[in-house]
Amino acid sequence: MPFIQDGPDASLTAAAVRQLCRDNELPTPSTAGWAPDCAQANIVILPAKYADDFRTFCLRNPVPCPLLGETKPGDPTVPSFLAKSSDIRTDCGRYNIYKDGQWVDNKTDVMEEWKDDSVAFFIGCSYSFESALVANDLPLRHQEIHKMTPCYKTSVQLMQAGIFSGRMVVSMRPYPADRVSDIQAITRSFSKAHGEPVGYGPEGAAKLGIQDVDGQKPDWGDATVMKEGEVAVYWGCGVSPQQAVLDSKIPGTVMCHQPGMMLVLDLKAKDVCE
Amino acid sequence: MPFIQDGPDASLTAAAVRQLCRDNELPTPSTAGWAPDCAQANIVILPAKYADDFRTFCLRNPVPCPLLGETKPGDPTVPSFLAKSSDIRTDCGRYNIYKDGQWVDNKTDVMEEWKDDSVAFFIGCSYSFESALVANDLPLRHQEIHKMTPCYKTSVQLMQAGIFSGRMVVSMRPYPADRVSDIQAITRSFSKAHGEPVGYGPEGAAKLGIQDVDGQKPDWGDATVMKEGEVAVYWGCGVSPQQAVLDSKIPGTVMCHQPGMMLVLDLKAKDVCE
Repeated sequence: MPFIQDGPDASLTAAAVRQLCRDNELPTPSTAGWAPDCAQANIVILPAKYADDFRTFCLRNPVPCPLLGETKPGDPTVPSFLAKSSDIRTDCGRYNIYKDGQWVDNKTDVMEEWKDDSVAFFIGCSYSFESALVANDLPLRHQEIHKMTPCYKTSVQLMQAGIFSGRMVVSMRPYPADRVSDIQAITRSFSKAHGEPVGYGPEGAAKLGIQDVDGQKPDWGDATVMKEGEVAVYWGCGVSPQQAVLDSKIPGTVMCHQPGMMLVLDLKAKDVCE
Repeated sequence: MPFIQDGPDASLTAAAVRQLCRDNELPTPSTAGWAPDCAQANIVILPAKYADDFRTFCLRNPVPCPLLGETKPGDPTVPSFLAKSSDIRTDCGRYNIYKDGQWVDNKTDVMEEWKDDSVAFFIGCSYSFESALVANDLPLRHQEIHKMTPCYKTSVQLMQAGIFSGRMVVSMRPYPADRVSDIQAITRSFSKAHGEPVGYGPEGAAKLGIQDVDGQKPDWGDATVMKEGEVAVYWGCGVSPQQAVLDSKIPGTVMCHQPGMMLVLDLKAKDVCE
C-alpha cells in the first residue's frame, strides 16, 4: 500500500485509484471522495442471455439504474469512453457474487467467475455528484465519519423488465432541512447519476416505506450520525439491481461491485449531467 | 355526425379522426381502435414555469410517462412530426380541467383556458400497441364491450421531479394466463408506449397495491368483463400525470385529455417502438 491515511487522496487520478483497487490496496472502505472530479459506476455482470432484459430494466428505471454503458459479451474490457485500460474483472475493489438469486461470496476479483458470455453493465453512481454538494457547502457525513452511506430497501416497486423486478434501493445523506431545495437544484442536473432526491424527511421516508428515519439500521451500507435540525435525504441507488437479483431470484451467477466500492471512471462527473 | 356505428371506423385517417374530435362528433366513448396503425397521445398542458419540472418527471418515469414531444410556450400547434395541422386546444375529444390540484371541469375544448405561457406535453399511449395485440390473436375486451380500459391508482410511488410526485396509474386488460409471455414479448418493443406489462395476475396486483383484481371497480375508466382462465394484465398508463396533479396539488390551471379520449397522431404506431 503506497500510503495510509484517514480519507481519500484527492490528488490521485482515476487510473491511479483503479490501480489501488486492482491491487486491493485502497485504504478506505469505499471509493467515495477519490478522483472527485470523476464519475463512478455501479457494476452488474451477468450471462448474455439476460442482457436484453437487464438493459431494458435499466432503461425503464433510469433514476436508480442510469445506464452508462456495457461491455461486449465475453470481453472484460471497460468501454474506453468510461475508463481506459481497465478490466472489469479486477478494477472494482471488491465484488459481491450471487448464485441463483442468493448472495454467496465477496471477493477481490471475478477472474474465476467471468465467462465467455459474461456482459458487464455500468450504472451511474451518486458519488458522482458529491463534489458538487461539497462545493456548495454541503459536506458529506459518511466521509466525515469514514463510513459508507446508509442505503435502504424501499417499498417502491421498480418497473418490471423480463425476468427483472424488485424494490428500489436508496442512499441516504443527512442535511439541514433548510438546504433541501439547494440540494434538489444541485443534484437535479446529474441525470445519469440518480439526479434529484426521490424524497426527504419523515414524509419522504413514509412514501418510500422506510422505518429507520434516523439512519441507525440501514439495509445496506453503514449507520450514520444525524444532528439536530437535519433530515434524511434519499436518492435512487445503483444497488437496486442487486436487490432485483435477490427479489427476482435470477438464476445462475451474477457478479456486482460491493456497495461503496465502485469502479472509478475517467469519465468526468460533469459528463453524467444533462 | 357523418355516421353512427358500434365501433371505430378503421378506414379513417388520423387527420379525419382528429376532425371528428374537433367537431365533437366521435361516436365512441374513446379513441381506442381509431386509425389503428397510428400512435395516440396523452396530453398535459401547464404553465411554462412548471415545464422543466414536468419534463424531468416524464424522463424519470418513462414507463408511465414516455415523452413524445412538447409545444413551444404559448403556441398551441402540435409539433408536425406528431400530427400535421393540429391544434391541441381542440383536437382531443374531451379535456379534464384541474385547478390548484383539484378536478373542476370536463370540456370539449380548452380555448378559454389556454394561456400565452401554456406548454402542451405529448405522452405515449397504450392504444398504440393494441393493433399489434389484435394481430396476434389477442382481442381487446374493452373494445368488444365498447368501454374504456379499467385503470387503477397503484401504491407505486413515481420518481419525484420538482413539484411533481404521485402514484402510478396502470391500465388493465384481461387475457388468458397462458398468453402472458406472448403479451410481454409483443408489447416490450413499444418503449414509447409503456412497453411490457408492469405486472399481471394476483401477484402483480398485490405488488401494485390493487385490490380490485376482477376489474369491477376501477379508479379511472370503466369496469370490464373477465372470463374463466383470464388474468388481469397491467401496463403503465399516461393518466399517471393527472394523478400526480392531484397527489402533488399542482397550483394554477392544468388541462389534460379525458382518459380514453386521446390525441390521435399521424405518427405511426411502429414509430413508438425501439
